[in-house]
Amino acid sequence: MFLTQGLARAATINPNVPATINRERRRSWAECAERVARLAGGLVARGIQPGDRVAILALNSDRYLEALFAVPMLGAIIVPLNTRLAPAEIGYILADSGTRMLLLDDAFLHIPAQADMAAVTDLLYLGDGATPAGMTAWEDVLGAPYTTDTPAGGDDVAGIFYTGGTTGKSKGVMLTHDNLVSNAAMMGPACGYRSDSVYIHAAPMFHLADLASIFAITMVGGTHVFISRFDPADLLSEIARTKVTNVLLVPTMVNAVANYPEIGKYDISSLRVIPYGASPMPDAVLKKAAEVMPHVRFLHVYGMTEASPLATAMDLHIEPVGKRLQSCGRPAMLVDVRIADAEDNEVPRGTVGEVQLRGPNVMKGYWNMPEATATALRGGWYHSGDGGMMDEDGYVYIVDRMKDMIISGGENIYSAEVESAISTLAGVAEVAVIGIPDERWGETVHAVVVPRAGAVVTPEQVIAHSRTLIAGFKCPRSVEIRNTPLPLSGAGKVLKTDLRAPFWAGRDKKVS
Amino acid sequence: MFLTQGLARAATINPNVPATINRERRRSWAECAERVARLAGGLVARGIQPGDRVAILALNSDRYLEALFAVPMLGAIIVPLNTRLAPAEIGYILADSGTRMLLLDDAFLHIPAQADMAAVTDLLYLGDGATPAGMTAWEDVLGAPYTTDTPAGGDDVAGIFYTGGTTGKSKGVMLTHDNLVSNAAMMGPACGYRSDSVYIHAAPMFHLADLASIFAITMVGGTHVFISRFDPADLLSEIARTKVTNVLLVPTMVNAVANYPEIGKYDISSLRVIPYGASPMPDAVLKKAAEVMPHVRFLHVYGMTEASPLATAMDLHIEPVGKRLQSCGRPAMLVDVRIADAEDNEVPRGTVGEVQLRGPNVMKGYWNMPEATATALRGGWYHSGDGGMMDEDGYVYIVDRMKDMIISGGENIYSAEVESAISTLAGVAEVAVIGIPDERWGETVHAVVVPRAGAVVTPEQVIAHSRTLIAGFKCPRSVEIRNTPLPLSGAGKVLKTDLRAPFWAGRDKKVS
Repeated sequence: MFLTQGLARAATINPNVPATINRERRRSWAECAERVARLAGGLVARGIQPGDRVAILALNSDRYLEALFAVPMLGAIIVPLNTRLAPAEIGYILADSGTRMLLLDDAFLHIPAQADMAAVTDLLYLGDGATPAGMTAWEDVLGAPYTTDTPAGGDDVAGIFYTGGTTGKSKGVMLTHDNLVSNAAMMGPACGYRSDSVYIHAAPMFHLADLASIFAITMVGGTHVFISRFDPADLLSEIARTKVTNVLLVPTMVNAVANYPEIGKYDISSLRVIPYGASPMPDAVLKKAAEVMPHVRFLHVYGMTEASPLATAMDLHIEPVGKRLQSCGRPAMLVDVRIADAEDNEVPRGTVGEVQLRGPNVMKGYWNMPEATATALRGGWYHSGDGGMMDEDGYVYIVDRMKDMIISGGENIYSAEVESAISTLAGVAEVAVIGIPDERWGETVHAVVVPRAGAVVTPEQVIAHSRTLIAGFKCPRSVEIRNTPLPLSGAGKVLKTDLRAPFWAGRDKKVS
Repeated sequence: MFLTQGLARAATINPNVPATINRERRRSWAECAERVARLAGGLVARGIQPGDRVAILALNSDRYLEALFAVPMLGAIIVPLNTRLAPAEIGYILADSGTRMLLLDDAFLHIPAQADMAAVTDLLYLGDGATPAGMTAWEDVLGAPYTTDTPAGGDDVAGIFYTGGTTGKSKGVMLTHDNLVSNAAMMGPACGYRSDSVYIHAAPMFHLADLASIFAITMVGGTHVFISRFDPADLLSEIARTKVTNVLLVPTMVNAVANYPEIGKYDISSLRVIPYGASPMPDAVLKKAAEVMPHVRFLHVYGMTEASPLATAMDLHIEPVGKRLQSCGRPAMLVDVRIADAEDNEVPRGTVGEVQLRGPNVMKGYWNMPEATATALRGGWYHSGDGGMMDEDGYVYIVDRMKDMIISGGENIYSAEVESAISTLAGVAEVAVIGIPDERWGETVHAVVVPRAGAVVTPEQVIAHSRTLIAGFKCPRSVEIRNTPLPLSGAGKVLKTDLRAPFWAGRDKKVS
């Protein structure tokens, strides 16, 4: 299997349907396929060969999509960079991956002056302005169409996706053509993507949560809409303008949209399915979202970069109720999921253990890290590091990242459960729960709460409300009320490492 | 990817849902998965090793399904035999495939006495009666569960499926685990299969048209219902009794059901989607079927054994109208489809050429036929031999069988094989076999025979002679004796188009 097969299919079945809508710029699938082939040809003309790494540091756009197909088309490897990284981190990844060519848009033109660019010999400009000195404009790369009788594919690496490393070093997840295609083949049906779908890229494209839909929507011949970065008003406006049917959002984004005061002014009746994942969705947020968007099916999915990323999903035709509202669904079509103990033995249903995966979507390994690869894939299963349990009918519940689990007085406390309880208190806009050091208990539960504009929430209210919903030992012992948003990662996840840092300074755990 | 992953998934997500309903015998997915592992263990105990061939000659049943999983589970190769073959043909396939073990049900207990069984050393009995002498009952095969850390899969051959040969010899299509799993992964969504689907095996299971749903329905955790052979009353009765949602039928079966006088007596409201294919559906039949089953979505699919079998399908969410009623849909998700000329160059849309395919579902090759394999897969594309065209939106229309295959009642009949048989009758000089239109069967086999000078040949002799050599369904239904030579092309080939013309006048197919 090879990535550009989906592109060819889209051009075959929907040649005249819009492939990309980037503000006022629209291109059909016939145009898009032709441009990608010409871009791949142009990259070859610039000396890019199979196996070479080409990095991209850019906000969401149609050109980002073109790069994601053109680079793997010729057998080279795309390296999408996290847009929130510091220059030193970018320099590390460019050097670690041995990137030869870097694609930049207007938001990142300052990077070459600040980051170590020793290995990079070619800079391409993805923007619409005047081409900066020393760079080549994307439109000028277009050359003679790339053709081959033996397309790159199968076990060839198509992309390297750097994830935040728990040991301080970012790890490059190698995903092959087969990984990404098999993910797209099961993710499209799981999320209800079809040949008339219109998907908007609102979450950052460098992250697999959104990037996977580049391939899944293309494979079904749907339409891609782009906004450069997430903004509730911009998102709602583009949904109304382009009749968007699907968008993957992380819970913080669902929260922002559902609580956007003027949501009622936009016609979002075209929306059909919103897959959400990447972090737990508090009950109150899901309830609010369902209230303001009653015609939308919110679909819990779960995955990780190492799985390209889909691991589990709710069945599209089964509306979850009761405790299953908190389930992230059942194993995706081609994926074996098991919950195992520390010795990699499967545990009985209902018992918490580590979520482990096996399937054609599981990564080839970490770039240049044979030991980390062997550890992560030992016994043929990917060890996610996530704590979870599976019920009698195969529904999976993620109780926490193992590293986000709080151990207080010997009890395991899952921050997601505590966050979900606190989120239902009136006036709470955002909440994050972490473990902080305690002489007696090892750790105690600490909550950081951001009230809604104009609302007053006190620590006493938070603790009292928690006591009505969860066991006493799970309730926060301390609460900070803050009036600034919680720190978010590039992928929109709350940066708990930043919240924990002041408490754990000088200690050797929990900070990373 | 490996075939039993789908079985494991079904047992994970729907352990207590019925896996198989065979009349009064019901087994859950947990039971089914356990039985398959124990059967695989039992087969190993009987000496079956990875790569060994195990053939099955049986009507549809739950045990047939168990064999289809148990044999590939241990890395062996299942060889499902066409139930209509003559003993000589079965003997040929057993010898050609080097089959060691043969599975038989009650309908085929006479075969060992009539066919060449030289290579077969073990006979298993799939029936419920007293176990015949020299055979072992299926229930007695159950042993200790088969387990492995490195499941057979990927490019390993899982099954060999013999199709009628164009040169008189049947060809064994080798399908790998990856072939069959990738087909199931795209076929399930294409046909609307989901975790609450109930599928009835009414078409013969040895044929990929039905057999593919063994894997596709299992992968989604649905339920399989079995009737031993197609019968309209039995089918309708079981649909009502077991609340069937899906069934794949060939057009002659749709015709029989739609015109069954007492259809109104059965509650078939549970039916959702009926994929149909394998031969053209006359407009009148589709119209009638839609009239008597207005709640059912009839879905045109197209494929062939060499593609495991799915090549194209209508979109489930697009109701075809106008000329698209005759389209077999658009390329399936992972399949590249092109229409090419005799030099393998793609032709413009709307032009008739050969349908060619590329994808993870395309066969590894023909068993022990490297030259036929190289020819069929030259340039990396499978050459179907079917004439077709593609319209501007990727919809495919099959207009002719370039290899002169006759499709009668859903069975593929290769005229060359029939011609080869007839040619051995004393007094026959020339023979050409064509398909002629038939209201009930779609086509029937018609032979045009030119006797040698001075010889007398009668239609009755031709039919009787055929019956001694080939299966009944392949024998001509009508014979024309003519005393002028057959029309030939400049290259010396019989102009079958000319022979067909009078029969197909006024119809829009088969003449060209």
